[in-house]
Amino acid sequence: VTSEATPPLVAGFRFAGVSAGIKKRGGPDVALIIADRVVACAGVFTTNLVVAAPVVQSRAALADASRARAVVVNSGNANACTGEVGVRDAAEMAARTAAALGCAERDIQVCSTGVIGAPLPMDKVRAGLDAALAAARPDGLLAFARAIMTTDTRPKVRFSQITLGGRTITAAGACKGAGMIHPNMATMLGFVVTDANVAEAELVTVWRRICGRTFNAISVDGDTSTNDTALCLASGEVGGAPLRGAELDALEALLERVAGDLARDIVRDAEGATKLVALTVRGAASEADARLAASTVATSPLVKTALHGEDPNWGRLVAAAGRSGARVDPARVAVSIGDVTIFSENRWHGPEAEKAANAIMKTPEFGIALDLGLGTHAHTVFTCDFSADYVRINADYRS
Amino acid sequence: VTSEATPPLVAGFRFAGVSAGIKKRGGPDVALIIADRVVACAGVFTTNLVVAAPVVQSRAALADASRARAVVVNSGNANACTGEVGVRDAAEMAARTAAALGCAERDIQVCSTGVIGAPLPMDKVRAGLDAALAAARPDGLLAFARAIMTTDTRPKVRFSQITLGGRTITAAGACKGAGMIHPNMATMLGFVVTDANVAEAELVTVWRRICGRTFNAISVDGDTSTNDTALCLASGEVGGAPLRGAELDALEALLERVAGDLARDIVRDAEGATKLVALTVRGAASEADARLAASTVATSPLVKTALHGEDPNWGRLVAAAGRSGARVDPARVAVSIGDVTIFSENRWHGPEAEKAANAIMKTPEFGIALDLGLGTHAHTVFTCDFSADYVRINADYRS
Repeated sequence: VTSEATPPLVAGFRFAGVSAGIKKRGGPDVALIIADRVVACAGVFTTNLVVAAPVVQSRAALADASRARAVVVNSGNANACTGEVGVRDAAEMAARTAAALGCAERDIQVCSTGVIGAPLPMDKVRAGLDAALAAARPDGLLAFARAIMTTDTRPKVRFSQITLGGRTITAAGACKGAGMIHPNMATMLGFVVTDANVAEAELVTVWRRICGRTFNAISVDGDTSTNDTALCLASGEVGGAPLRGAELDALEALLERVAGDLARDIVRDAEGATKLVALTVRGAASEADARLAASTVATSPLVKTALHGEDPNWGRLVAAAGRSGARVDPARVAVSIGDVTIFSENRWHGPEAEKAANAIMKTPEFGIALDLGLGTHAHTVFTCDFSADYVRINADYRS
Repeated sequence: VTSEATPPLVAGFRFAGVSAGIKKRGGPDVALIIADRVVACAGVFTTNLVVAAPVVQSRAALADASRARAVVVNSGNANACTGEVGVRDAAEMAARTAAALGCAERDIQVCSTGVIGAPLPMDKVRAGLDAALAAARPDGLLAFARAIMTTDTRPKVRFSQITLGGRTITAAGACKGAGMIHPNMATMLGFVVTDANVAEAELVTVWRRICGRTFNAISVDGDTSTNDTALCLASGEVGGAPLRGAELDALEALLERVAGDLARDIVRDAEGATKLVALTVRGAASEADARLAASTVATSPLVKTALHGEDPNWGRLVAAAGRSGARVDPARVAVSIGDVTIFSENRWHGPEAEKAANAIMKTPEFGIALDLGLGTHAHTVFTCDFSADYVRINADYRS
């Protein structure tokens, strides 16, 4: 189930990734997911008010109906801050794909990632799209994953299976990196497909919840891209009645496993990062407080540089929670690194605890927990450290 | 009026800075401002919910009455997250100073900065306090400034004078650095004294406004310390009636000049920083939007690494404003670096503009403006770049 293993086929889907010359440095840059027919599709998009043309296009299409026939992606150019031209280009990408597949334009999802502010080279995009339409194959997920990469160091593919009522249900997906992206801004793109049979409305609800715990629960540098998109498509090819009740819960767990693995892969591959940290705030007075405190701590530069230094600096953790806007009473806060409590009841637990915590922080993946002691709400954010490499990569003058 | 010039005396005040052995590496670490009598005093404190004991003590004292006789500061230990012991220690610092000066405990302001979580070495603090009380002199501001430093590379003293109705009014102050402080967390401390005659209530109003445009308008890494404090004391020794109307406005401008110079000194001296950038958001739909957008852009790691790389990366600037929560319509946003507009009306102004902007960014101090095109509100934040040195300094394991 690692990124390296060959993913199983997912009935009802074909994938492609081809080189169209959009990326300056070459490599595959047009990618396609095609469903055999129009299928259920749920999408979660960036909350940035500065939104790229493809996000406007795709969000409107899904607002119309939670369905899609295909997803077309280009890398190398974000089609963001491109004005009216960009809107027309995104629409043309949908229209051209729809014409080839014989479906409505609104049944096509469009994503772009790469440099901001330059118009799409549409001649290349058209040729790439035609090539991708011809190249799509059931075993093409890895080619798809390669073609959506920007500065990711490796393609990210994950999958998982469950058996429900005698039927094996498969979910597989691919994603590309968030944050720390040179030469421009990060874009997080995540795609999961399944052959499960699930009603459109159920898929929308389930996918929104999953994204809140996976793609929207990772933090690399706190910057939100203009292009972030997470899509889930369900073909229903496995047959049977639409899943509900406990079976729907099992599907949610399956999809979350794949989405969570993909999301963590993004943090692992963040440029300059050397640590994957599951940062949990629990004991919060409300769900909103848990999210606010966790995301503030997870994006604090002082916390992230301490992670890089393997420094169990509980003072920075507590102070970041304190400024988050969440209800915090320092006398009730307890801080643990792995299973070592280093601060509680206004008291540092001494050099022994600190030494044990430091040893845990020397490993590449570990957990940190802040218990606020005020309630029952919890939230986990997956974050990484800030390294000097992060600065070096992101400070380089675009050229 | 630079930090290097010798500040003039401010009638009614004496200052001291002495070495008490609180800092592990030695150097002055107990500092004192003494007014000849109880004078008007206004304070602005950290908004962090995790608040150090001295802040609790000082805030309560000023809530009682906007007056003070003295300000006592120790560096080397923040007296934060120290529970009941810390509260007692802060109270003792006030009580001991009050006893020596023959005033009430509530007339003493107490500040601490340094390592979090360790109890104050009170024997050393007591001896240092007694020494500082004996050493206080009218020309001791620079000694005071040296004794409040933690990892600041230089003492920060600023002053200015105006003439009102034939009387010369002097304001002078000192501060210590915000953000990027090793081994623990940043603390920003700022102090301005004046010999002007101003009513307590007026000073409180004026000082709150000034701090919003100076000490609270600087951003180093977005982390807010548990100990941040900015105090202004007015002795009235210059005589005359309490200032009002246009004369009060002139005093506000005088105090703001000193506080602004000090605040910018903090950013200039931020660890690893090589650029001082005045980041202005104008054309915002509301004052709150202007502040939100400016502070989000000013703390974005992607923006700050681009500043370090002298990269006029308007995409990162616009996208950070877009995620800030402020109302933003990308089609109306214009971005300028210095006097060069590089993006407006959804259009990049081309390589010539970018080259000119890059040349401006090669200088150590410059301005960046985002005009949101939605209203008349503006806010300026002084920020700095993120360098690899910042990571190195803050990642070092505490030892």
